[in-house]
Amino acid sequence: MNSLNETVVKPVHSFADKLIERIRAKQSITCVGIDPQIQFDSEKSPVPMYLLDECGGNANEAIYRFFKDIIEAVADLVPIFKPQIAFFEQFDAMQALKDLLTLIREKGALSIIDAKRNDIGNTSEAYAASIFKNIGADATTVNGYLGTDCIAPFLAYEGKGLFILVKTSNQSSSEFQDLFSMALESVSPDVGEIDAPEGKLVRNYIQMATLTRKWGDACVGEAGYSDIGAVVGATFPVQMKLVRDVLPNAFFLIPGYGAQGGTAADIVHGVNADGLGAIVNSSRGIDYAYQKDPEKFSPGQFAAAAHAAVEEMNADIAAALQESGKMAW
Amino acid sequence: MNSLNETVVKPVHSFADKLIERIRAKQSITCVGIDPQIQFDSEKSPVPMYLLDECGGNANEAIYRFFKDIIEAVADLVPIFKPQIAFFEQFDAMQALKDLLTLIREKGALSIIDAKRNDIGNTSEAYAASIFKNIGADATTVNGYLGTDCIAPFLAYEGKGLFILVKTSNQSSSEFQDLFSMALESVSPDVGEIDAPEGKLVRNYIQMATLTRKWGDACVGEAGYSDIGAVVGATFPVQMKLVRDVLPNAFFLIPGYGAQGGTAADIVHGVNADGLGAIVNSSRGIDYAYQKDPEKFSPGQFAAAAHAAVEEMNADIAAALQESGKMAW
Repeated sequence: MNSLNETVVKPVHSFADKLIERIRAKQSITCVGIDPQIQFDSEKSPVPMYLLDECGGNANEAIYRFFKDIIEAVADLVPIFKPQIAFFEQFDAMQALKDLLTLIREKGALSIIDAKRNDIGNTSEAYAASIFKNIGADATTVNGYLGTDCIAPFLAYEGKGLFILVKTSNQSSSEFQDLFSMALESVSPDVGEIDAPEGKLVRNYIQMATLTRKWGDACVGEAGYSDIGAVVGATFPVQMKLVRDVLPNAFFLIPGYGAQGGTAADIVHGVNADGLGAIVNSSRGIDYAYQKDPEKFSPGQFAAAAHAAVEEMNADIAAALQESGKMAW
Repeated sequence: MNSLNETVVKPVHSFADKLIERIRAKQSITCVGIDPQIQFDSEKSPVPMYLLDECGGNANEAIYRFFKDIIEAVADLVPIFKPQIAFFEQFDAMQALKDLLTLIREKGALSIIDAKRNDIGNTSEAYAASIFKNIGADATTVNGYLGTDCIAPFLAYEGKGLFILVKTSNQSSSEFQDLFSMALESVSPDVGEIDAPEGKLVRNYIQMATLTRKWGDACVGEAGYSDIGAVVGATFPVQMKLVRDVLPNAFFLIPGYGAQGGTAADIVHGVNADGLGAIVNSSRGIDYAYQKDPEKFSPGQFAAAAHAAVEEMNADIAAALQESGKMAW
């Protein structure tokens, strides 16, 4: 079993350092989500029908062609892309995923595979190998419910990034993540229930942030940011501030901007005074921007629509940061 | 977004009913884990070298041939198999996985894909579609950290089973799962920390069991068991009893028997008086049993070794249950 002690402190070129380099080069903290959605035989299919027809209904090929054009259209504008692996799995499109990651790398951008994996021992090693070696991503999302045993195998890959699920953007995240808890290590593991003793209770998502800090402090890059970040939803701006207090030098991967209701004013709470420490994801709002403005964009102009949507998102976030006095890219 | 209200109560032929039928037919609660492990160019490769050579180094083919023989050797002895998807992903062996599930079905057994997926909205729908439709499993494991939004899309598939991670078998499961917590719904979501009020604190894994019960009560089969079960490690027998108190009619998927140190005496705590409510997984101990006794089994006799290992495990568990007065298959 791997242990945290084996991990490298201050890797020569950490994931966080590479991310910061690209944020400065692109003047953007936007992360473009890659969510391949197909509705076969529907004129409203997000990956459009004409493309599916041209590919003889081959989802793998249609997905590759659609996102190749989007990546080429926006790679100059953003530091990082986030393919959601569930959609690729659903369509048996792992080859498209690998080819898109190759393209992202060639275009000088980084990639996060959103996979939320979690397991232990050699199973966790297999997931880490699958995502970092077989698929070839720069970073991935991980669920920390199983503790250090799950995280350690991913940390064996130097210079790769991890984003631990801390406070997710969905409404029912409160059911478990918002419970108030405390560690009572002196109580026997055999005891399941006790009368609350005196002391502080903190939300479960803050406990997860505290674990994330413990893991992340072992792999801080040259610029002072850790390779272990946190997922914190744009839909919870106050909670984002509380997580920032626990994790001053973590990058936040912030979903929930746009389609889910999070605004630029919300995500500002996740950004540090140096303008760093956060990337803001939008998937549907960029990938399928052409569907929101059919007067302006035909299905064949999906890449131009994505380009316009990214420019708008970059400007929206830059304005909110400037207003808050935080921008310093 | 799906809601729990859409789920069907008492499906005509629930996963739990199908599982109980097979437990009675096979007189066994053993679950055979399918963990394809390959060490290329090593004489000690778990999936043996001679088989890899015969398949020209094609992992997909070697994995299929190895586990086809194992499934055929043990399908008469067990109700259910549990392929661990991480190992298939690592080797791009999804076709082998699908073909093995077809074989398991043909042999009259059930399947759990161990995937520990977790996401929300249409991403969770994509995972559910991938596992239940595309791959074709009867059940899967899920991580409940994201709450109901993650679970609901899986429940849309009638007669399929879910196992929620409650108390996992690994040592670091204590870091988060053993925190003591309480729900304080009257406290503003903006508050992250409070002084502990009077009241009961329970372990986080018990909170997850309570959520599992809420989800599971909506889909109880004819025999009185729910289609929503719980993962509880054999390595924590006392905690298993506590979880049983919260979840009287859930099936437990119990990992940790054998290689991880759990014994038949440990898993008895997870079994109800009717002899039901638990399945006990062993992966390496069965798949690679031939490696433990090289005097008796050559690599080519891996299936016979697996057969012997399952017979031994069945007898071990049956004896422990009989001794506790619980056996009633």
